[in-house]
Amino acid sequence: MSDPITDQRLLYIHDQLSDEDIQREVDLYGPLTDSVRQLIAATLQTEVGEPDVRRAKALVEEAAAILQERAIPGPYGVRWGASGWKRGWGNAADGVRNAVAPPLTIQTDPDGRTWTDFHLGPQYEGPAGLTHGGVSALILDQVLGDCAVAAGSPGMTGTLTLRYRKPTPLGDLHAEARFDRMDGVKAIVKGHIADAAGICVEAEGIFILPRWAREAAAASTAG
Amino acid sequence: MSDPITDQRLLYIHDQLSDEDIQREVDLYGPLTDSVRQLIAATLQTEVGEPDVRRAKALVEEAAAILQERAIPGPYGVRWGASGWKRGWGNAADGVRNAVAPPLTIQTDPDGRTWTDFHLGPQYEGPAGLTHGGVSALILDQVLGDCAVAAGSPGMTGTLTLRYRKPTPLGDLHAEARFDRMDGVKAIVKGHIADAAGICVEAEGIFILPRWAREAAAASTAG
Repeated sequence: MSDPITDQRLLYIHDQLSDEDIQREVDLYGPLTDSVRQLIAATLQTEVGEPDVRRAKALVEEAAAILQERAIPGPYGVRWGASGWKRGWGNAADGVRNAVAPPLTIQTDPDGRTWTDFHLGPQYEGPAGLTHGGVSALILDQVLGDCAVAAGSPGMTGTLTLRYRKPTPLGDLHAEARFDRMDGVKAIVKGHIADAAGICVEAEGIFILPRWAREAAAASTAG
Repeated sequence: MSDPITDQRLLYIHDQLSDEDIQREVDLYGPLTDSVRQLIAATLQTEVGEPDVRRAKALVEEAAAILQERAIPGPYGVRWGASGWKRGWGNAADGVRNAVAPPLTIQTDPDGRTWTDFHLGPQYEGPAGLTHGGVSALILDQVLGDCAVAAGSPGMTGTLTLRYRKPTPLGDLHAEARFDRMDGVKAIVKGHIADAAGICVEAEGIFILPRWAREAAAASTAG
């Protein structure tokens, strides 16, 4: 078994990259990740015959081999540059370098409302033609968690409750969250996903920073 | 706005494929999708320089262009072959043709316990080095939903409640669900995700087949 405290310390990385170097990485890796997103959709939608599938597969493997020539061995972790620019680029919901992520660009207004407009392609399907309920959960977990951070109460998800009010289509969607209240050390945040016609999924999340995470963050800052 | 009833009818497809033809598709598209999964990880983990990234990106785009030469225009939907073999191959949690899916191979025991052993790579990260809480939700939504189907009460997710008991590592994990009880038309299912040391996330789901879905399924069967 891995030890989460040790792992967490190793993966909180202060690499002192300059903003210019980080922007260069965004400009380099961001478009690659977008191309992989399109490949994911094409892999799901293709009806070409066997020779073409085998040709495409060989190209995909050639690309992966090039990228694997020099690569980190595990998850990306969370990294901070010299100016404090935080990179959670491996994040499954909003990671710039994670082709599984839609990705989300999450913003927070001065009044604390945290929101994102995003597009879900065919790779986020659950019921036929609709967004997977678990994908809605993934997005709401991220948006509610970011809202807790913006409210000054960062934490890991303690409880997440989702109410599916009507089917969530694929395509253009909106998600938002508002900080509701503190209950001791727990931050309670509420939000929803909506399409153009109204709310599809409502969510309430309780976010808590567990002691081991506070200790790991403190050790990382000290190091 | 799209009309979910119309969309649902279009995407419940009875294509009468033989089991042999379906198996041929599994053997053809499954390995392609696995290669794309490895590419997703490599895209996230790579540290190669700009020329190599651009070379890999060109190969990815060439592969996508080959696959897009003949492709369905939208989501995969749910398809049934002549023998009743159901294919939800676009599903974000367990789709054979969806590289976003880990994928899950979900099984049901004779006593109704629905379960899966699976592996999560670096593309499922949330907190540094750990599984994203929303990815756990995606997996539990699918396993609990499949358990409702196995219990004879298929439905869409009405409510999903997740309790995060301890951090969920990446790597080898187990998820399972058991049918709890009916409450009118609602099927209530409980389950969890565990690592080798015990339960990480508990879930309770309420699954309901909404009228529009019953009508769409009936129209599809009639057609």
